[in-house]
Amino acid sequence: MEYFPEVPTIKYEGADSRNDFAFKHYNPDETVAGKTMREWLRFSVCYWHTFRGTGADPFGAPTLDRPWDDGTDSTENALKRVDVAFEFMEKLGAPFYCFHDRDVSPERDTLKESNDVFDKIADKLLEAQKRTGIELLWGTANLFSHPRYMHGAATSPNADIFAHAAAQVKKAMEVTHRLGGQNYVFWGGREGYMNLFNTDMKRELDHLGRFMHMAADHADKIGFKGTFLFEPKPKEPTKHQYDFDAAACLNFIRQYDLMDRVKLNIETNHATLAGHTMMHELAYASIQDALGSIDANTGDLLLGWDTDQFPTDIYLTTQCMLVIMEQGGLAPGGVNFDAKVRRESFEPVDLFHAHIGGMDAFARGLKIAAKIREEHVLTDFVSNRYSTFDSGIGEKIEAGTVGFSDLESYVLEKGTLEPNQSGRQEWIENLINRYV
Amino acid sequence: MEYFPEVPTIKYEGADSRNDFAFKHYNPDETVAGKTMREWLRFSVCYWHTFRGTGADPFGAPTLDRPWDDGTDSTENALKRVDVAFEFMEKLGAPFYCFHDRDVSPERDTLKESNDVFDKIADKLLEAQKRTGIELLWGTANLFSHPRYMHGAATSPNADIFAHAAAQVKKAMEVTHRLGGQNYVFWGGREGYMNLFNTDMKRELDHLGRFMHMAADHADKIGFKGTFLFEPKPKEPTKHQYDFDAAACLNFIRQYDLMDRVKLNIETNHATLAGHTMMHELAYASIQDALGSIDANTGDLLLGWDTDQFPTDIYLTTQCMLVIMEQGGLAPGGVNFDAKVRRESFEPVDLFHAHIGGMDAFARGLKIAAKIREEHVLTDFVSNRYSTFDSGIGEKIEAGTVGFSDLESYVLEKGTLEPNQSGRQEWIENLINRYV
Amino acid sequence: MEYFPEVPTIKYEGADSRNDFAFKHYNPDETVAGKTMREWLRFSVCYWHTFRGTGADPFGAPTLDRPWDDGTDSTENALKRVDVAFEFMEKLGAPFYCFHDRDVSPERDTLKESNDVFDKIADKLLEAQKRTGIELLWGTANLFSHPRYMHGAATSPNADIFAHAAAQVKKAMEVTHRLGGQNYVFWGGREGYMNLFNTDMKRELDHLGRFMHMAADHADKIGFKGTFLFEPKPKEPTKHQYDFDAAACLNFIRQYDLMDRVKLNIETNHATLAGHTMMHELAYASIQDALGSIDANTGDLLLGWDTDQFPTDIYLTTQCMLVIMEQGGLAPGGVNFDAKVRRESFEPVDLFHAHIGGMDAFARGLKIAAKIREEHVLTDFVSNRYSTFDSGIGEKIEAGTVGFSDLESYVLEKGTLEPNQSGRQEWIENLINRYV
Amino acid sequence: MEYFPEVPTIKYEGADSRNDFAFKHYNPDETVAGKTMREWLRFSVCYWHTFRGTGADPFGAPTLDRPWDDGTDSTENALKRVDVAFEFMEKLGAPFYCFHDRDVSPERDTLKESNDVFDKIADKLLEAQKRTGIELLWGTANLFSHPRYMHGAATSPNADIFAHAAAQVKKAMEVTHRLGGQNYVFWGGREGYMNLFNTDMKRELDHLGRFMHMAADHADKIGFKGTFLFEPKPKEPTKHQYDFDAAACLNFIRQYDLMDRVKLNIETNHATLAGHTMMHELAYASIQDALGSIDANTGDLLLGWDTDQFPTDIYLTTQCMLVIMEQGGLAPGGVNFDAKVRRESFEPVDLFHAHIGGMDAFARGLKIAAKIREEHVLTDFVSNRYSTFDSGIGEKIEAGTVGFSDLESYVLEKGTLEPNQSGRQEWIENLINRYV
Repeated sequence: MEYFPEVPTIKYEGADSRNDFAFKHYNPDETVAGKTMREWLRFSVCYWHTFRGTGADPFGAPTLDRPWDDGTDSTENALKRVDVAFEFMEKLGAPFYCFHDRDVSPERDTLKESNDVFDKIADKLLEAQKRTGIELLWGTANLFSHPRYMHGAATSPNADIFAHAAAQVKKAMEVTHRLGGQNYVFWGGREGYMNLFNTDMKRELDHLGRFMHMAADHADKIGFKGTFLFEPKPKEPTKHQYDFDAAACLNFIRQYDLMDRVKLNIETNHATLAGHTMMHELAYASIQDALGSIDANTGDLLLGWDTDQFPTDIYLTTQCMLVIMEQGGLAPGGVNFDAKVRRESFEPVDLFHAHIGGMDAFARGLKIAAKIREEHVLTDFVSNRYSTFDSGIGEKIEAGTVGFSDLESYVLEKGTLEPNQSGRQEWIENLINRYV
Repeated sequence: MEYFPEVPTIKYEGADSRNDFAFKHYNPDETVAGKTMREWLRFSVCYWHTFRGTGADPFGAPTLDRPWDDGTDSTENALKRVDVAFEFMEKLGAPFYCFHDRDVSPERDTLKESNDVFDKIADKLLEAQKRTGIELLWGTANLFSHPRYMHGAATSPNADIFAHAAAQVKKAMEVTHRLGGQNYVFWGGREGYMNLFNTDMKRELDHLGRFMHMAADHADKIGFKGTFLFEPKPKEPTKHQYDFDAAACLNFIRQYDLMDRVKLNIETNHATLAGHTMMHELAYASIQDALGSIDANTGDLLLGWDTDQFPTDIYLTTQCMLVIMEQGGLAPGGVNFDAKVRRESFEPVDLFHAHIGGMDAFARGLKIAAKIREEHVLTDFVSNRYSTFDSGIGEKIEAGTVGFSDLESYVLEKGTLEPNQSGRQEWIENLINRYV
Repeated sequence: MEYFPEVPTIKYEGADSRNDFAFKHYNPDETVAGKTMREWLRFSVCYWHTFRGTGADPFGAPTLDRPWDDGTDSTENALKRVDVAFEFMEKLGAPFYCFHDRDVSPERDTLKESNDVFDKIADKLLEAQKRTGIELLWGTANLFSHPRYMHGAATSPNADIFAHAAAQVKKAMEVTHRLGGQNYVFWGGREGYMNLFNTDMKRELDHLGRFMHMAADHADKIGFKGTFLFEPKPKEPTKHQYDFDAAACLNFIRQYDLMDRVKLNIETNHATLAGHTMMHELAYASIQDALGSIDANTGDLLLGWDTDQFPTDIYLTTQCMLVIMEQGGLAPGGVNFDAKVRRESFEPVDLFHAHIGGMDAFARGLKIAAKIREEHVLTDFVSNRYSTFDSGIGEKIEAGTVGFSDLESYVLEKGTLEPNQSGRQEWIENLINRYV
Repeated sequence: MEYFPEVPTIKYEGADSRNDFAFKHYNPDETVAGKTMREWLRFSVCYWHTFRGTGADPFGAPTLDRPWDDGTDSTENALKRVDVAFEFMEKLGAPFYCFHDRDVSPERDTLKESNDVFDKIADKLLEAQKRTGIELLWGTANLFSHPRYMHGAATSPNADIFAHAAAQVKKAMEVTHRLGGQNYVFWGGREGYMNLFNTDMKRELDHLGRFMHMAADHADKIGFKGTFLFEPKPKEPTKHQYDFDAAACLNFIRQYDLMDRVKLNIETNHATLAGHTMMHELAYASIQDALGSIDANTGDLLLGWDTDQFPTDIYLTTQCMLVIMEQGGLAPGGVNFDAKVRRESFEPVDLFHAHIGGMDAFARGLKIAAKIREEHVLTDFVSNRYSTFDSGIGEKIEAGTVGFSDLESYVLEKGTLEPNQSGRQEWIENLINRYV
């Protein structure tokens, strides 16, 4: 059966700007700066929004028209969704996907039964992966939707809930491993607090540290070599999430001695909710060797919640790609569209418009970033800006061979200092516009 | 000469609520929870806002009426301000003060001359301290106002500026040491960036790490034992400051191996600009043994800049004191009013209204927090909430004697989990109101 | 049957602060500033959050334990909820309630059937009102939850949807009238846009104006004399709602000539989402004779969505009551708790904690506001501040008997102007704290 | 004397993207959609930022290098600045400029003296205008920088200050008239409040209404036909400004019966500080026939103050031009760069980079908007979206020939409603990207 009959398999070559279902900028086989676009971009479709989204919001009922879905939690329905998903991803040409355990496989009355269904679904996913060549970018466990997790999972004040979360992650990691998943993500949706008065933050963070070490031990035990990825988000659903931003995650990771096991999965909308640009979060993680993967979407900076829109702003995609290219790429991570169609875009075909737009915008960002890097105007400006540290007193400062007294003497003797240079922000903004 | 003739020395006892210049709640000698209020609160007046503020804002000229100040940078004027400051602090009954180098002592054409004036001012400050018993809570260097620091100080792309910053901190630390200062603060007002495109964040952070180690070495060299305090602030004046919040500071401190040398000086208005409650930042720092001191003020959550208002909200002061009491106090840190009168409150007498209001609000917060702690209703609720970790599977989790497989077996065997308990947020809010 | 067996009817007299189910400050029969507290406060319970809330959020499933509710849309279940609601309100001592049509009465396949069920429910509501003396503060229609309203109701681009909204409001207004409702509310949850590119704002606003005139005509036709109330909210669920804040509502109301028919229902959380304090929105509406009623709740200023928490901050309730007392009260409007328990406060008893806390905080705010007004310290300060307009040139300015040329001559002749007075903000903040 | 020797007169033709001082997209004589770019864009340079900015910020001293300026308030210095300004504008090719009275002419001890200097400066401005052909887009009075205006100008609680403001606006309007100014702007920088407790909002707004009527009377008296423009801004420098956004301005304008005299001057950074997109504010004003002119700049949505950056985002400029083209242009208003170079861009030449970037971005936005309009894909989508209102029941609704009862009958009879159409937001975002 064909679920998206109105959409042909999308061609890359000869894309015409009037053809809705074609890429104008993305061609997976095209080489840019020494790699194919496929290798640079490693696009991934997310199962939750794309195949499980309903269009419900806090003020409204589901709107999305998904004729193949009977709305039940039956195993049959879950199995049928696998077909839908792979047809969609094949037509789109996405090389990766990712999921939470409960996206692909419904919760049952007991953990045992849930795990059994999960295995059945995993069989079908594996078969579909083999048939299509589409790979699993990462798996994760949903530790926030079920009421049991209302107070958190690894940071729940209830030890049984901690145990359940552990068992669930164990299974999700095993399935991810079996499906060849290249990473495993931890998004602590309810690892935080609603109210600081009823919370023992120290004890909760210690539990979270303990949880992560158990996860690492289990990965070792089963031979799972995929990267662990923390996904920062400051708030929503809770008032405060411990993984607030890259800095809070990295402080935790350092404090609990996990730097060799955990990197970050950075999301645009989470970055901006935390008061940062996406480019900041990416660069901040990257220079600490902690940028593992990205959730590609965008928020609306005038709205205070996670709108998870598809990214189409080419300034944004250019900035992302500048950082990603600087570190040589994201692999084994990728560019995952953690984004959803608006609830008013309720037709199946809107899923294609959305993904094509996001992929095309990233392809364009890649090309622009490659051009900026190739022409060196910007990079030369930046390295020249710091050139006083390449020799003389600056070199000594970096080498650690001078202290406060030496520097005081230097200043007292020298009299006048090197003048500052203009920061040239306006010139830089114009420069970027010339590449756009 | 008397600079505040309209304000008598303020009495604590028998304070009448109709008397503007008396405390209703603050009495330094009164004992609360085993210490005097003086010991708990360690109030400090800041030199910059209180004696150097002008009332200028980005859209308006100075407004504040300070009849004693001739508006010049003369040494005489600077010396006279010391008299004004100590008269104010004595009448107010504040036991501490703090300053940046350039607040108390004007900049001269060369570092040598600036340092010479600074020594002269320091002589007078020392004399006034001895005469009045008022102590220096902390000193710091202003590394953000002078145009030379436009691109940062320790993170400037210009090595000469780094050197100048080093020399300036050296001197400020030495003067702080000479004046018996109990801490030394680092607020990196321009340690950040205006534009990420022209910035080498990695190199800048490495320089900052280097700078801090030089500072620590110099402190050792001169025998200065005071705590080093980082003061987080997310933005303003720059687009992004590296010391964004407590988490960003602590991640840096861990990364550059400074945990044994540096604690935090947390400010309310900086916390809220970073998207956190003050209570969050305090608790987060405290549980990592990193809460050193506080800058007591408040912001306006509907405004996006640092309004530095005096704190008068007793919910806020109660929350501060709950965390501070939990860690046994702030010493050698204190409660510094990094706050300024509104530019429309232009009379000298408004300085008294402002400080008395802030001190009284903190005294009231102290009493409320002491009562909450004494009656244990809240603390019992919290410890009971985590009691499943005190025995059984929870105890094993904390002890690190179980792993994912054990926990999976536990869940599979147990069948049903311990039910969650209500978080009781509304009951807690009512409880707090009963103490207010 | 008794639905809240653990909660006795709550007594007002002799309330003990250790008794969770008693008021400390609220006594409906107590007279404050010439009216009973019942008359000033006119508390109302909202049907949607209190009896239809589930605890679901965008990341989690329902959590609230409501043993009486079978979770279906059956008429029987809807009728049973009426009993639950009136038992709750009677025990609490709330004199008013309010609802959307679909809160009390489920949607059926056709409008005809939905209206028929609604009549049946209305019979039971009327009977319960008579039995208990509890009155209907206002009714409204839910024009945002059903998928048909995804693009708006009165501003939908689809004329049939406009027609359906009209029919639904017609019925809701008729039922409100039948139940003696004192007001009728319009909250335009989806009257706005998600995307300005696909929107004809002019045409949508014209439709909304037309809709309101139809509503007014229908009210006249059926003899409904209740006030029409617009409820401002800036965003959520849409990107932009036309009733952004009090100013946007009033501009619309003036533009479409509705000033004699429509007032405002102001909500704290909506005010702050729009960047205003609640006190601002109240005062702004009140001085334009447009403050009709309030939705009493609070938001979290560090979160960007409508948290609808119960109001417990006594600074907030004092500010509300100062404005409300200044205009002589809210009747026929009231203080409606458009607030919900946290999803972690999942027990029925939490509903009592929540409402008691909110009512008590408003009662305390009333008493504080009454005291502030009675002692005149603040009001005298304010009227003195403007006294230059009571005579001389100021009086002429207000009388409109002078123009620019006269004022220029006045300034040129006078030479020096009256000096400004200190705004005394810090003194005022201290003053308020003395009453708290 | 030549003040910008490093910058030649800028050529439009044959602009090379590697030439910093040339336009790539802007050519004033090029025709786009039936008008020249000069006619559509009407670029204006603002005197305050460009010729009076110093680079000072709340945490730092002036940085900008302006070798021609001696930093004094002498008349000679003010006269020299006129030469600088016109050299800059001629080289840049800007057809308009605008100013506050105190930008061009310094304040003196008395109003009489200030007015006398102003006349002298005006003579020179007029001469320079004639010589260069550069015109005055608008004038205004600075009623916020001087300490006398600390509590507001037309809304000051001090009648003498009101009188002074009136006298100052009288003179500024007369000079604007003499210089052929095409508009007169009112930005009420301190018309608002810092604290609602000390404020009589009703009285202040009545005074503001009175002030505007005096202004209108005076314009009539002197024959000034230029448009009056209100400039909305929500906050900064005050906590709340009465002209919060377009809606608040228009509500005031309607309430005080000024719709035939006043339009709006909309600024991007003010729009976003109020929680609106620039496109929203423009469209909202335009459909009420109230869009008069724009202040072209941009803010940083992650910062909470007015950064007044030069606009370079082509999505933004495209959106602006779409609304402006829809209403047929801005004349007699224009596109005024109320924007400043960063304080780190301290060289004179940065002023050129900044303005060229802004002008080029608007020129590009104009071309993109023209293309979008010309191809009709978007406009056809929108008009089709509302087509149900072009006939049948929709047409009757718009005509006002049906009421609630008719619409109820229509729905009851029809049974099923017209289905909604997808909002196609993602397709639209892709469509826009195809034009960018």
